[in-house]
Amino acid sequence: MTDHQPAPVTVLGLGSMGSALARAFLAAGHPTTVWNRTPSKAAPLVAEGARHTTAVDDAVAASPLVIACLTGYDDTRAVLESTTASWAGRVLVTLNSGTPTGARGMAAWAAEQGIRFLDGAVKDVPDAVGKAGTLLYYAGDPEGFAEHAATLRALGGDTVLLGDEPDLAKFYESAVGATLLPALVGFFAGAAAARNRGIPASELVPYSVRWLTMIGEILPLFAAEIDARDYSAGASSVDLFLTGADWDLEFARDAGIDDAWLRPLHDLIRRAGAAGHGPDSIAALTEVIRVP
Amino acid sequence: MTDHQPAPVTVLGLGSMGSALARAFLAAGHPTTVWNRTPSKAAPLVAEGARHTTAVDDAVAASPLVIACLTGYDDTRAVLESTTASWAGRVLVTLNSGTPTGARGMAAWAAEQGIRFLDGAVKDVPDAVGKAGTLLYYAGDPEGFAEHAATLRALGGDTVLLGDEPDLAKFYESAVGATLLPALVGFFAGAAAARNRGIPASELVPYSVRWLTMIGEILPLFAAEIDARDYSAGASSVDLFLTGADWDLEFARDAGIDDAWLRPLHDLIRRAGAAGHGPDSIAALTEVIRVP
Ligand SMILES: NC(=O)c1ccc[n+]([C@@H]2O[C@H](COP(=O)([O-])OP(=O)(O)OC[C@H]3O[C@@H](n4cnc5c(N)ncnc54)[C@H](OP(=O)(O)O)[C@@H]3O)[C@@H](O)[C@H]2O)c1
Ligand SMILES: NC(=O)c1ccc[n+]([C@@H]2O[C@H](COP(=O)([O-])OP(=O)(O)OC[C@H]3O[C@@H](n4cnc5c(N)ncnc54)[C@H](OP(=O)(O)O)[C@@H]3O)[C@@H](O)[C@H]2O)c1
Repeated sequence: MTDHQPAPVTVLGLGSMGSALARAFLAAGHPTTVWNRTPSKAAPLVAEGARHTTAVDDAVAASPLVIACLTGYDDTRAVLESTTASWAGRVLVTLNSGTPTGARGMAAWAAEQGIRFLDGAVKDVPDAVGKAGTLLYYAGDPEGFAEHAATLRALGGDTVLLGDEPDLAKFYESAVGATLLPALVGFFAGAAAARNRGIPASELVPYSVRWLTMIGEILPLFAAEIDARDYSAGASSVDLFLTGADWDLEFARDAGIDDAWLRPLHDLIRRAGAAGHGPDSIAALTEVIRVP
Repeated sequence: MTDHQPAPVTVLGLGSMGSALARAFLAAGHPTTVWNRTPSKAAPLVAEGARHTTAVDDAVAASPLVIACLTGYDDTRAVLESTTASWAGRVLVTLNSGTPTGARGMAAWAAEQGIRFLDGAVKDVPDAVGKAGTLLYYAGDPEGFAEHAATLRALGGDTVLLGDEPDLAKFYESAVGATLLPALVGFFAGAAAARNRGIPASELVPYSVRWLTMIGEILPLFAAEIDARDYSAGASSVDLFLTGADWDLEFARDAGIDDAWLRPLHDLIRRAGAAGHGPDSIAALTEVIRVP
């Protein structure tokens, strides 16, 4: 493949993320055609070498690989339904955010139209697109992925096909991303407590970053316990976290922060204790989080 | 200091953590005296060169630096109140877990006895004690810290005095540690969803670890917004997270996991939106987490 010319690619949608995608393709030397509902957003990319068209038909026809990065699946379908472009020999890749259900709906629609389809997820900010360490995962048509993996790699060094079930990228995005909001709320709660004491949030940051690294380091151990459904060797027990729950509430009171967001987390710990997991690893919470 | 002989040190409490502390002092060449309520736990440390005594008076008298690592402050006070040891010229350091309130109580007690006092926190597992990258932070008597910093450094390469208010180590521990439980619950929820779909938790781990790293990378930006109380330049808006909240619930339903722990987190997002922070950075949650 290394002797080949970079393959042509089309990007539909030139918001923050779509523009970053187009820019990464251009930087890797791919002939890049761009389209956006609001045409003015194409100007900076044209200055960087993109070909701009205001007709979606034309944009689809320009390349064997068509990337859509609109707000959501419904927007993408609305745009594509408005065209009569032929999809023979082409592959459609959606890179918007959404849910597994949304991805399945999009895949069903693509199948009806006879469009070979991949759904992907960019697990990063637009600035990271095109960098070696950036991860994008995909799910769907394996041949489509194989045909265009070399082009897709322009978006990030880590380009992974999770499987052929087309909702897998969104499934991983949701399952993996489930730490984001709770971890941030934990950080903001600590920052609020610090503010109340006159300590800047920025003084917590180096310690918070290490703490997140440490949490990352224990995840393989927890995952092994979860996969074996054996929580008996746990160093950080449910009972230990129960003690911590009282301390959390005392701290919230003392530091002048809201504790409503903590209470259902504590309920999970108590449910695990009531189910006999007291001396077990805190990873046993996995069992009580599942709907019975 | 480099030409000095390693200074003598005493460790009270030889549970998992206390034993690790004593071992790190021994490894760094400090003459180490150990005491534990249940004397048998001293045997492995004696084999490694520790001096063991069953009398607390004797243990305190043996060293200018006395480290206590019992379950809690009450246990520590109970042990120290039972002795008539003189504290003149000595420094007491507590390294148990607890709350800022607990640390203040311990400091008040120490002050009554005329004991120079530091409280510390080991932000890691016993296995990490003594390693270059391991962080321990301390708060309290600054001269006591200066006198013994060289010895304390045997416990971890990163030895920090946060300030002279004696509850600061526990305050940082609570404020920084506030991400732990919510982040873990997020991970366990993702793992439960994966289990329901036949995907092992261990397949999520590499992605989850990167995700935590990415969260760590955005914290300095959020902290700057929080410290400036200016959330207007936020790339990840409250409104974006509001959309995500609906997706979270759809995912929980679809994946067969409990969503009770998510709802109060979503309430915070909605409260931030209602306070006019919709287009602002998600860091604006800090404002609504503070008790008014
Ligand atoms: N930005 C990030 O950090 C980030 C990270 C990961 C994933 N994502 C995801 O990537 C996708 C795009 O995000 P973004 O940040 O680029 O959003 P954005 O800046 O708001 O851009 C949205 C894009 O979608 C287009 N669009 C929306 N509705 C449309 C419709 N009905 N018909 C035609 N075009 C429509 C917009 O066209 P107009 O210009 O004409 O309005 C624009 O090109 C989203 O799903 C987002 O969640 C973003
Ligand atoms: N292990 C960790 O991962 C970790 C990490 C960070 C912080 N910490 C903190 O370090 C402290 C000690 O933890 P650990 O893991 O070493 O606990 P541990 O293994 O349960 O040991 C507890 C120690 O406290 C002693 N003790 C408890 N109550 C006592 C009393 N009333 N009188 C006399 N001695 C008493 C025990 O003596 P006996 O042997 O006689 O029972 C034992 O030496 C805790 O506050 C813990 O939260 C632990």
